[in-house]
Amino acid sequence: MSEAFHTIIMGLRDFLKDYFDGFWDSYETPKMMVVKNKTLGVIYRAVQFLVITYFTWYVFISQKAYQESETHPESSVYTCMKGTAIHGDDILDTVEYARPSEGGDVISTLLRREYTYDQKQGTCAEHFEVANANCTTDADCVQGEADLEGNGRRTGRCIQYYNHTFKTCEIQTWCPIEAFAVVQEPPLVEAINFTVFIRNSIHFPKFKVLRVNAKYASKGHKKHKYLKKCHYHEEKDPYCPNFRLGYIANQARENFSELCRTGGVIGVFINWDCNLDLDPSHCKPTYSFRRLDLRKDLGNTGYYYRFAKYYSNDGVESRTLVKAYGIRLDVIVHGQAGKFSTVPTIISLVTAMTSVGICTIICDWIMLTFIDRNEVYSERKFDEVIKEPTETIQTEVSFISSYGSNHSDLSDGVPL
Amino acid sequence: MSEAFHTIIMGLRDFLKDYFDGFWDSYETPKMMVVKNKTLGVIYRAVQFLVITYFTWYVFISQKAYQESETHPESSVYTCMKGTAIHGDDILDTVEYARPSEGGDVISTLLRREYTYDQKQGTCAEHFEVANANCTTDADCVQGEADLEGNGRRTGRCIQYYNHTFKTCEIQTWCPIEAFAVVQEPPLVEAINFTVFIRNSIHFPKFKVLRVNAKYASKGHKKHKYLKKCHYHEEKDPYCPNFRLGYIANQARENFSELCRTGGVIGVFINWDCNLDLDPSHCKPTYSFRRLDLRKDLGNTGYYYRFAKYYSNDGVESRTLVKAYGIRLDVIVHGQAGKFSTVPTIISLVTAMTSVGICTIICDWIMLTFIDRNEVYSERKFDEVIKEPTETIQTEVSFISSYGSNHSDLSDGVPL
Amino acid sequence: MSEAFHTIIMGLRDFLKDYFDGFWDSYETPKMMVVKNKTLGVIYRAVQFLVITYFTWYVFISQKAYQESETHPESSVYTCMKGTAIHGDDILDTVEYARPSEGGDVISTLLRREYTYDQKQGTCAEHFEVANANCTTDADCVQGEADLEGNGRRTGRCIQYYNHTFKTCEIQTWCPIEAFAVVQEPPLVEAINFTVFIRNSIHFPKFKVLRVNAKYASKGHKKHKYLKKCHYHEEKDPYCPNFRLGYIANQARENFSELCRTGGVIGVFINWDCNLDLDPSHCKPTYSFRRLDLRKDLGNTGYYYRFAKYYSNDGVESRTLVKAYGIRLDVIVHGQAGKFSTVPTIISLVTAMTSVGICTIICDWIMLTFIDRNEVYSERKFDEVIKEPTETIQTEVSFISSYGSNHSDLSDGVPL
Repeated sequence: MSEAFHTIIMGLRDFLKDYFDGFWDSYETPKMMVVKNKTLGVIYRAVQFLVITYFTWYVFISQKAYQESETHPESSVYTCMKGTAIHGDDILDTVEYARPSEGGDVISTLLRREYTYDQKQGTCAEHFEVANANCTTDADCVQGEADLEGNGRRTGRCIQYYNHTFKTCEIQTWCPIEAFAVVQEPPLVEAINFTVFIRNSIHFPKFKVLRVNAKYASKGHKKHKYLKKCHYHEEKDPYCPNFRLGYIANQARENFSELCRTGGVIGVFINWDCNLDLDPSHCKPTYSFRRLDLRKDLGNTGYYYRFAKYYSNDGVESRTLVKAYGIRLDVIVHGQAGKFSTVPTIISLVTAMTSVGICTIICDWIMLTFIDRNEVYSERKFDEVIKEPTETIQTEVSFISSYGSNHSDLSDGVPL
Repeated sequence: MSEAFHTIIMGLRDFLKDYFDGFWDSYETPKMMVVKNKTLGVIYRAVQFLVITYFTWYVFISQKAYQESETHPESSVYTCMKGTAIHGDDILDTVEYARPSEGGDVISTLLRREYTYDQKQGTCAEHFEVANANCTTDADCVQGEADLEGNGRRTGRCIQYYNHTFKTCEIQTWCPIEAFAVVQEPPLVEAINFTVFIRNSIHFPKFKVLRVNAKYASKGHKKHKYLKKCHYHEEKDPYCPNFRLGYIANQARENFSELCRTGGVIGVFINWDCNLDLDPSHCKPTYSFRRLDLRKDLGNTGYYYRFAKYYSNDGVESRTLVKAYGIRLDVIVHGQAGKFSTVPTIISLVTAMTSVGICTIICDWIMLTFIDRNEVYSERKFDEVIKEPTETIQTEVSFISSYGSNHSDLSDGVPL
Repeated sequence: MSEAFHTIIMGLRDFLKDYFDGFWDSYETPKMMVVKNKTLGVIYRAVQFLVITYFTWYVFISQKAYQESETHPESSVYTCMKGTAIHGDDILDTVEYARPSEGGDVISTLLRREYTYDQKQGTCAEHFEVANANCTTDADCVQGEADLEGNGRRTGRCIQYYNHTFKTCEIQTWCPIEAFAVVQEPPLVEAINFTVFIRNSIHFPKFKVLRVNAKYASKGHKKHKYLKKCHYHEEKDPYCPNFRLGYIANQARENFSELCRTGGVIGVFINWDCNLDLDPSHCKPTYSFRRLDLRKDLGNTGYYYRFAKYYSNDGVESRTLVKAYGIRLDVIVHGQAGKFSTVPTIISLVTAMTSVGICTIICDWIMLTFIDRNEVYSERKFDEVIKEPTETIQTEVSFISSYGSNHSDLSDGVPL
C-alpha cells in the first residue's frame, strides 16, 4: 500500500518535472524562408515603409492615437450684460434690456418692443388675415371654433372690423387684438456697443483638469480693473471674455440693424481643445459665433417673445402686452482633452505592428503569383504532409520525398 | 597613413553595401506546413467562415466599425407655446400660462393654481399635521424651533387652530398659512389643445454638419404659413415640430386630466441618428416622450412651484401666494453621427485579419491533440534544435539527425 | 460542337473540383522551430507572463476593456428650495429668496441685497472713481462720451458730486447713481439651514437604463414623509437628495458667511458611475461640490445680479434698483455606464493575443544577437533560397546545398 502510494507520488513528481522542464526550457519561433530576390525585396521594403509612415504620421502624429481623450467637459457659464443707451428720452441700462437677469448660459437683450396697450378681457373682431375670419353674416362664423393661428374663440357673430368697413367674426379674447392695436417702438441700435461678459469654467473629470476662460493679464494693468475694461482679442487678450454685441453680430456674419428688426438667436461656441501633454498655456479657449435660428431665405426667422404687465383699475383687470424682439445668446461649450495613456498606445502600436504583417500577405501573393513561375519558392515555403495510414514507416525517406514533391494544387496561394 | 585611411573607407563602403544589399534583396516569409487532411480542412474553413461572417456582418454592417462617430452635438432649442383657452370667465393666452416666456429648452404650462390670498407677516397657528405642532399648553411649544417641514419659527405659545376647537403651536410666518387658507382653482383641461413649437438646431463640430428640425414642406402650402399651421406627423410632416400637449401626454402614456391635477415633468427627447455616408435626408430627428418625475406608485410625484404677487396698502405689505401645478417640458437632445474614416476602418480590418489567425490556434490545438496521434504532424511542424556545445561540428549530419528526432516533450502543444 | 461544349463543361467541373478539393482538404499552419535552451525559455515565459498579466489586470480588470461604455446620459433636474428665516422683522420663505421659481438645473438663493431707492431718469454726477470723471471745468467732460465702466452718457457739464465739495462730470442716467446711494442690507446668515431638494433622473439611451436619485427608504419611515424630512448621508441615506446650504458650502470648502457677503457659484456635481453587469444597487449617484467662479486671490469673485421694481407716481416713473448677492447652484450631471459587449471584448482579446506575439520578436532578437553566436539557430530558422536562373535543375541537391549555406548577411536579424 505504502509502496503504491510512493509510486504515484513519484509519477506525479516526474510528470510535473517534465511539464515544467518543457515549459521553461523550450522556446518556439516560426521558421522563415529568406528569398534572395531584388524585386521582392524592394516591394517588401516599400510596402513596409508605406505602412510605417502611415502609422507614424497619420495615426500617431495627426490623430494622436497614443492619447486617451475626454470630450464634453462639465461646464458652468455666468453671463453679465453691460452698457447704457439713450433710447428716445429714456436711459436704458442692463436691468431694462437683459433677460433673464440671473445670468445663465442663455441671455437675451431686448432690442425692439411692440406694445399693445390697455387690453381687456372681452369680445372683438378677429384679425382679417386669419383663415375663414372674413364674414358677411353670423352664419359664416361657427360658435366655439378656435383657429390655431387665430387669437381666440369665436362667439358666432359677425361684426365690423374695428373702424374699417368690412366684417370679421367676433372672438372672445383680450381686446383689442395685438395685430390691430400694436404700437412699434424704434429699435435700440445703440445696443451695438453693449458688452457681454461670459465667464466659463470647465472641468474634465477623468483628468481632473479645471480651466477658466477669464484671467488677469500679467501686464501693467491694475488687476482689479483689467476684466472690467478689456475687450476680447484672439491674440492680445485671449483671456478677456468681454464681447461687444456688434463684434458678435459681425463674427456671425449678420447685419446688426437687421437683427434689431427681427431678433435672432446667436450661438456663442466656446471650444476648448486641450493637449494635456503640453503646457497648460496651450489649452486656450477659442470662440466662434453662428446664427442658430432658421435660415434667412425661409422667412420665419428671428427671436421674440411676449410678456405682459398687468394693471388693476377699480376691479377691472387690464394688461399691456409686449412683444419683444431681441438677440438671444446661447453659450454652447464644447471641449476635448487628450493625454498620453498606455492602453490606447499599446492598442495602436500592436495594430501598427500587425498591419506590417499585411506586407507579408501582399508580398506572398506577388511572389507566388507573379515571380515564382516554376514553383521554386512555393515548394520551399509550403511543406506538404499527407498523413500515412501506417504508423511506423514515418522515416527519413518519406520526409525527404514529401519535401521534394510538387506543391501544385494549392488553391488560394495566400495563407490567411 | 593614406593607405590605412583608404582601407577603412573601403571597409565602410563594403559594410554599407552589404547592409543595403541585405536590406533590399531579401524577403522573409514564414514557412508553412500544408496538411492534407479533410477533417482539419473542413474545421479550418468552418472556423474561418464563422470569424469572417462575424466581422462582416456584426462588426462592419451592424456596428458600423468603419465609421468615426461623434455623439452629443452642440444643440440650441427655442420653444414657443401657442393656444387660447376659456377658463371660467377668463380668456387665457400664452402670456398667462407659459413660463418662462423666453423660450429656452425648459418650458412649463401652468394648468392649475392654488391661491392663498392676502397673506401678511405675523403670527398664527401652525398646521396640525406638522410634527409636534399639536399642543395643550405653551410648555409643549419650544420657542425658536423651526421644523423643516413646518411653515415658520415657533414663538413658544399654544393657540387655537383658526376657527377649530383644538390648539397648535403659534409660529411667526406669513399668515394665514397656505395649507389652511388655500383656494383651489379648477384645472385648465382645455390646455390639451395647446401646441408647443420646438425648434432645435444641432451642430456636429467634428464633421461640420448642421441640421435643423424645422423645414418647409415642398408641397403646395404657402411657405410662410406651413410651420404655423402644421402638426407633427412621423411620416407626413417629419419636419414640423408642432406638438399638441394632448399628443405629448398620450405618447408619454400619461392621463392628461391626472397631469392637470398633479403636474408633471415630461421629457421631450429629440434623437438625431445620422449616417453621414448616406443622403442627408436620412438624418431625420425622431421624438420620444417620457415622464421624468418619480413613479406614480411612490406618491410624491408631480411638478409645481410657488410664486407670489406683492401688494402694498397703506404701508402694510401683503401678498397672494400662488402654488402653480403644471406640465414642464424638458427638451433633451441626443444625437450621434457616423462617417467613414480610415483609422477605425484599418483598426477593425487588422483586428479582423488577426482574428482569422485564431483559427490557426484552434486548428493547431485540434490537430496536435485529437488528430495527430502518432506525432507525424508535430514532428514536421516543430523542428527541435538542441544547441551543440562544440562549435565546429555543426554539420549536415547533425542537422538531419535533429530533424528526424522525436518531438515528444512539447508541453503545451499550441504555440501562443 | 456538342463535343466541344462537353469538353468545356468537363474542364470547368474538374477545375471547380480541384479548387474545392484544395479548399476543403488542406490546412496550413506555420512551421515552428523549438529551441531547447533554458535561458531563452525563461526569458520567453517571463515576457509572456508580463504581457498576459498586463492585459488581464490592467486592460481587463482595471480599464474594463470588455465593456461597451456610454457617457453623458440624458438628464433632467428638478430643484426645490425649502426653509424659512427671520430677517430683521421680516419672515422670508422660499418665494422671497429662491430664483428662478421654476426649479430647473440652476437655482439661486438671494442672501444679501443692496437697494438704491427711488431712482429716476435724469442727470446727475458720475461716480468719482470712474476714469476721467473728476473735473474742474466743463471742458474736462466730453459730451456724448460713455465709459464702459461708467453709469451713463456724459452731458458735457462739470457739476458738484452730490453733497461733497469736489466735482465730477454730469451724466444722463437713472439718478442718483447706484454707487452713491446704495443701502446695504445685513446678509441672511440663517440661510445656512435652508435645504435644497435636487431630483435628478438620467437615462442611458444605448442601454435603455433609467435611474432616479430619489428613493424611499425601505425602513420604517412613513413613505410619503421620508423624502420631506431626510437629509443626505452618503451611507445612511444615499437616495435622499436634500442638502443643507451649510453642508454644500462646507463640502465646497467655502466659508458660508463669506459667501453671504460676496455671493458665489457652486457646482453640484452628480456623478453616476454604473457598471450594468452588476446589480442595479451598485449604480448609486455620488455628489461633489466645488466653487465655480473665479479664484479667491483674484478679487473679482462672487455672484450677483441686478433687477429693479418699477413704480409710477403721477406719471413719473421711478424704480428701486436691487443688486442681489447670492449662492447660485449649478447642478451638473455626469455619468457613465459600462456593459459587457462582444465587439470591444474581441478587439481587446485579439490585441492581447497579438501582443503576446511581441514576445517572439523580443526573444528572436535576444536569440539571434546574444545567444546564437555561431549561427546554429539562424541557419535553422532562416531557410535561404536563391532562385536559380535555369528552371529545370531545381533538384534535391540544390535544396540541400542552399539549406547548408551560411546565412551570414542577414541585415536586421529580427523579422518584422
